[in-house]
Amino acid sequence: MADTDPTTAPDPTGPPALSVDVPTLTAILDGPHAEVRRMVRELLPTYAGVLEDAETMDRDAFRERVKDVVLEIADSGAAAMGFPQEYGGGGDIGASIAAFETLALGDLSVLVKVGVQFGLFGGAILQLGTQRHHDAYLSDIVSGRLLGCFAMTETGHGSNVQALGTTATYDAATAEFVITTPTEAAGKDYIGNAARHGRTAVVFAQLEVAGEQHGVHALVVPIRGDDGQPLPGVRIEDDGPKMGLNGVDNGRIWFDPAGTVRVPRENLLNRFADVTEDGVYTSEIESSGRRFFTMLGTLVQGRVSVGAAGVSAAKVALTIAVRYGLQRRQFETGTGEEGEEQLLLDYGLHQRRLLPRLARTYAMHSAQQVLAAHLHDVFSGVTTDEESRRLLESRAAGTKALSTWLATDVIQECREACGGAGYLSVNRFAALKADTDVFTTFEGDNHVLLQLVGKGLLTDYASDFSDLDQLGMVRFVAGLAVETVVERTRVHKLFEQIRDALPGGGDSWDTDSGLLDPSYHVAMYRFREEHLIAGVARRLKRGVDADMNPGEVFSRVQDHVIAAARAHVERLVLEAFVDQVAAAQQDPAVDEDTRLALNALCDLHALSGIEADRAWFMEHGRLTTQRAKAITREVGDLCRRIRPIAGDLVDAFAVPTELLRAPALITPETGPEIVA
Amino acid sequence: MADTDPTTAPDPTGPPALSVDVPTLTAILDGPHAEVRRMVRELLPTYAGVLEDAETMDRDAFRERVKDVVLEIADSGAAAMGFPQEYGGGGDIGASIAAFETLALGDLSVLVKVGVQFGLFGGAILQLGTQRHHDAYLSDIVSGRLLGCFAMTETGHGSNVQALGTTATYDAATAEFVITTPTEAAGKDYIGNAARHGRTAVVFAQLEVAGEQHGVHALVVPIRGDDGQPLPGVRIEDDGPKMGLNGVDNGRIWFDPAGTVRVPRENLLNRFADVTEDGVYTSEIESSGRRFFTMLGTLVQGRVSVGAAGVSAAKVALTIAVRYGLQRRQFETGTGEEGEEQLLLDYGLHQRRLLPRLARTYAMHSAQQVLAAHLHDVFSGVTTDEESRRLLESRAAGTKALSTWLATDVIQECREACGGAGYLSVNRFAALKADTDVFTTFEGDNHVLLQLVGKGLLTDYASDFSDLDQLGMVRFVAGLAVETVVERTRVHKLFEQIRDALPGGGDSWDTDSGLLDPSYHVAMYRFREEHLIAGVARRLKRGVDADMNPGEVFSRVQDHVIAAARAHVERLVLEAFVDQVAAAQQDPAVDEDTRLALNALCDLHALSGIEADRAWFMEHGRLTTQRAKAITREVGDLCRRIRPIAGDLVDAFAVPTELLRAPALITPETGPEIVA
Repeated sequence: MADTDPTTAPDPTGPPALSVDVPTLTAILDGPHAEVRRMVRELLPTYAGVLEDAETMDRDAFRERVKDVVLEIADSGAAAMGFPQEYGGGGDIGASIAAFETLALGDLSVLVKVGVQFGLFGGAILQLGTQRHHDAYLSDIVSGRLLGCFAMTETGHGSNVQALGTTATYDAATAEFVITTPTEAAGKDYIGNAARHGRTAVVFAQLEVAGEQHGVHALVVPIRGDDGQPLPGVRIEDDGPKMGLNGVDNGRIWFDPAGTVRVPRENLLNRFADVTEDGVYTSEIESSGRRFFTMLGTLVQGRVSVGAAGVSAAKVALTIAVRYGLQRRQFETGTGEEGEEQLLLDYGLHQRRLLPRLARTYAMHSAQQVLAAHLHDVFSGVTTDEESRRLLESRAAGTKALSTWLATDVIQECREACGGAGYLSVNRFAALKADTDVFTTFEGDNHVLLQLVGKGLLTDYASDFSDLDQLGMVRFVAGLAVETVVERTRVHKLFEQIRDALPGGGDSWDTDSGLLDPSYHVAMYRFREEHLIAGVARRLKRGVDADMNPGEVFSRVQDHVIAAARAHVERLVLEAFVDQVAAAQQDPAVDEDTRLALNALCDLHALSGIEADRAWFMEHGRLTTQRAKAITREVGDLCRRIRPIAGDLVDAFAVPTELLRAPALITPETGPEIVA
Repeated sequence: MADTDPTTAPDPTGPPALSVDVPTLTAILDGPHAEVRRMVRELLPTYAGVLEDAETMDRDAFRERVKDVVLEIADSGAAAMGFPQEYGGGGDIGASIAAFETLALGDLSVLVKVGVQFGLFGGAILQLGTQRHHDAYLSDIVSGRLLGCFAMTETGHGSNVQALGTTATYDAATAEFVITTPTEAAGKDYIGNAARHGRTAVVFAQLEVAGEQHGVHALVVPIRGDDGQPLPGVRIEDDGPKMGLNGVDNGRIWFDPAGTVRVPRENLLNRFADVTEDGVYTSEIESSGRRFFTMLGTLVQGRVSVGAAGVSAAKVALTIAVRYGLQRRQFETGTGEEGEEQLLLDYGLHQRRLLPRLARTYAMHSAQQVLAAHLHDVFSGVTTDEESRRLLESRAAGTKALSTWLATDVIQECREACGGAGYLSVNRFAALKADTDVFTTFEGDNHVLLQLVGKGLLTDYASDFSDLDQLGMVRFVAGLAVETVVERTRVHKLFEQIRDALPGGGDSWDTDSGLLDPSYHVAMYRFREEHLIAGVARRLKRGVDADMNPGEVFSRVQDHVIAAARAHVERLVLEAFVDQVAAAQQDPAVDEDTRLALNALCDLHALSGIEADRAWFMEHGRLTTQRAKAITREVGDLCRRIRPIAGDLVDAFAVPTELLRAPALITPETGPEIVA
């Protein structure tokens, strides 16, 4: 809190009052898949009752209810838009992300069960399997006739999947793989669909052929019979009640260590590696690490989807909290009629709590759309180069981390902004908090994901970057000149370009630019990114030069690596939003008022981001204390400017009213009537 | 993230390795009421099963279970230690806070129901009533024979209680009060014990006598008959499922607007005001606002208790997360044996996530102890002056805000630090998150509470400060010279004193002091506080001078007021911890190792607090960028120093193992055994 001074009277020559056209803004947010989004928005109210069932049903009944809804959604076609048409899918990956993102406005157990069945289980068969697997399974998966599991995580290994313990040993005598769980901690854990509905699992296991280890591979393993009972040699345990998502039947799976669980050779998902009948291992990718990360890379849609769901959940929370702030009055302040209390959203602090988060949610929405388009292009073969694929993986990891942290933060603040009412389950905050909580750690722990992003930045996505473990990465970077690292990131070059575009040309761009110039915002975000990456490289190098153990060196710079990665993703998010806003300025379908509103939102997002990290910018000579205070003042001004359109801005999210649940929280009080 | 450089090799002449004696540290934490704490810690495992019942029982059954446990706790004497001995209580307010704080290590529905019955309901009868009420109710309340409600909050008015709508109109003809709920929104809401178990309520209502309004007063109103059914004219509704605390039966209460609910004149809790039989209102306190806040002030124990519970919940979360970090290994880093993965807590980032929060929890513990002692002194008549009482109210409000936000923050971070395992209900995070969530908004919304603290700071607790509404406060402050405000806060004088004690004497204390000098830490916290208060005063004055509407002026400086209040409470917290650590240095029962460890914890708390707000210190000329970077480096160093004793530091919290629930999460993995 800088003691800047927004208490002077408003400037009559100040910026014009804002207004927006809600349908126009919704159309901008909906983007290229507006039709799909509309379809899902129309579908969702049909199942709005699930939100209540989550509270009232016992766990068993709720799991069945959620399964039934998932099957109905499958029937509607909304769940499998990304699968090839010949198997009943929609053949459109971009559409499938848009559909999933929109489904996330509703009950999240339903969403996650859709994700488990169609994204994880179906996605693994589609991406890691070949024609024979597609023909055998995909139609049944798309229709929901075959429910399945994605059995990767183990009790002992979540983040470090490469080290998991389950084994698949090829037995050439019978042309079968023997699946075993060698230790209790190698049991598959937290597996959706495992506790109850899954008949088949894609199991990730260490492949051993003729006594040789080939790393982690995926196989199709039946786990339940037609009677719903575990097959012989398969032990299944329920994960029990969870913080949230209790409509999803997570469980544990162990395969008999004595080796009684066997699957035919053909069950190996063999897109990237195969075993011949007589037991010869073949793969076009030599490094087992790189092979594994190539496999994982094909499953990137999961991360894109979780991030999208996080943003949708934040939109629901903001819709409720902003509408509440626009009808709830508390304390008389003398600004309104005599005896009238003030609206919550007319308090400066309330604006400060909600509006920068609203702006950031718009920004993350843009970032998710850019990411989804990128995913679509790579997986539809529009772009085929390896670099584009690696950038996609990095972008998906980083965006997932920021989107899911956004959800946690926004939901918490919105819930607190609704006071006691926010605590009742009849509003959506209880379920939103509990259900989204796991988003920050599943499909990759956020810190581990940012570490991955950082590794990619430091090594310029060297062809084998994901294969480098932490030691390898430290040694790799230590072997480079720091300048090389900076050069490699290419941020440097981009930064030079932007500097040319800014006033001051040379070194004074950061003091001469207008605070509301998007080029200034982007330049600041880029400067931070570049500087942090170079700093990490320097520290890694220095540590190794001082003969420290690389593991210890890494441990010490780890928070710096994460900061660099975060700065990188923040820059991508800002650029996505700036680009979307710029596109709207060119779009004849967008009216002038809506353009101005988008500009203000983008400014608020960018400046509140700089404000939050202004210590760093000051420490690194890119922000004077005077300018820092001016930014704080400007953020307050932008909040006040945006306040009158806050309701419209959440209305543009187009969350179906039926999904908001809490009528009393969001509709104006109806006066002094009493029902005795 | 500053790119400071802790990657140089460790200094062999650096500070000595730390160790602590756990029982000694527990004794320090336990303080003067060690015996009570021990008694409750021994009691709690008896009811550990409630933690599981919260998941497995349906709501009705769980409410009954919780009620039964509360009655058993009442029998043990642990619930009513603050009541006079003649009614079966313990006659020791300090002990009652210590008992409540320790109960908070267990199930929080049990805790909150204890709080509703003994703290809120019983406390209101004790503090607002007189002998006749004490004799009539207290024995039954203490024993649990009479369960009751504290019916203050209404649907329409939570934070602004002075404006609530329920009325109590004196009818001199019958010598009765008529209790009515004039509008639907004036219904009492979120009232614990209302939905099911409460027979009687202390109802807060606008008192009207002979056509004249006298503001909010409290009356004893029976709401249920012996058959458990609402009495005629009383309508009760269940608040339904909540995010957490589902063992507490919250509900809504309306009193027939036609006026059929009547209570005898004697039911007015008449310690501060009374009505004679023939309808004359009398009170020793003239201002109705001041009278109301005097009443509220007597209920301050509730806020102290909630804050204490927040700190206890944070301790439980830290105990689980730190122990998990000490047994969970993930990724090989080359620092250990070949093939051995690294412990989570050996990662720099993991230390950064958990250890400053651990230090802050110790600091908040100290602050709560100082607050509890202050409460004890005021309510046991040890100190009787008005100022001490006002300072207590302010301190209780501010500490409650910081303690409950600490809980929200620590629990979230600890849960994320336990990955997927943290999401299962078998660990405690699900319940901890859900149950503590409401702490930030009940017993006063945290932001509203900090506003109250800010108001007190600005007006130097002017005798009628709490009676000043926002407009009044703005006008009051605007009428003062800014220097007067600063002078009045007395922070200025204290600050001068500390400056004299620091090297540099005059203006260079902030650059010449050692980073680990507690006087430096306190001086920094004080400087921030003083500067923020003066800044608010200046802005209020300027706004009023510019002829802005005082409500608008307040709205604009509101975040600044909150920041000033927060800085004030942060300073109190730091001083409490510094004092506790200093006392340990003098205490012959404390060994040298434990002293050193406490010093390091206090340094970590103080410096990570400065680090988090270093932007502000730089903006206000009290921190160079070089020194800011040095602080960041020092925080990292302190984390590494404290890492080896992290397990002991959480063990010293002495959370009974039975209450941690998650054996797999916190005990070392048991090797390669398998249960087939």
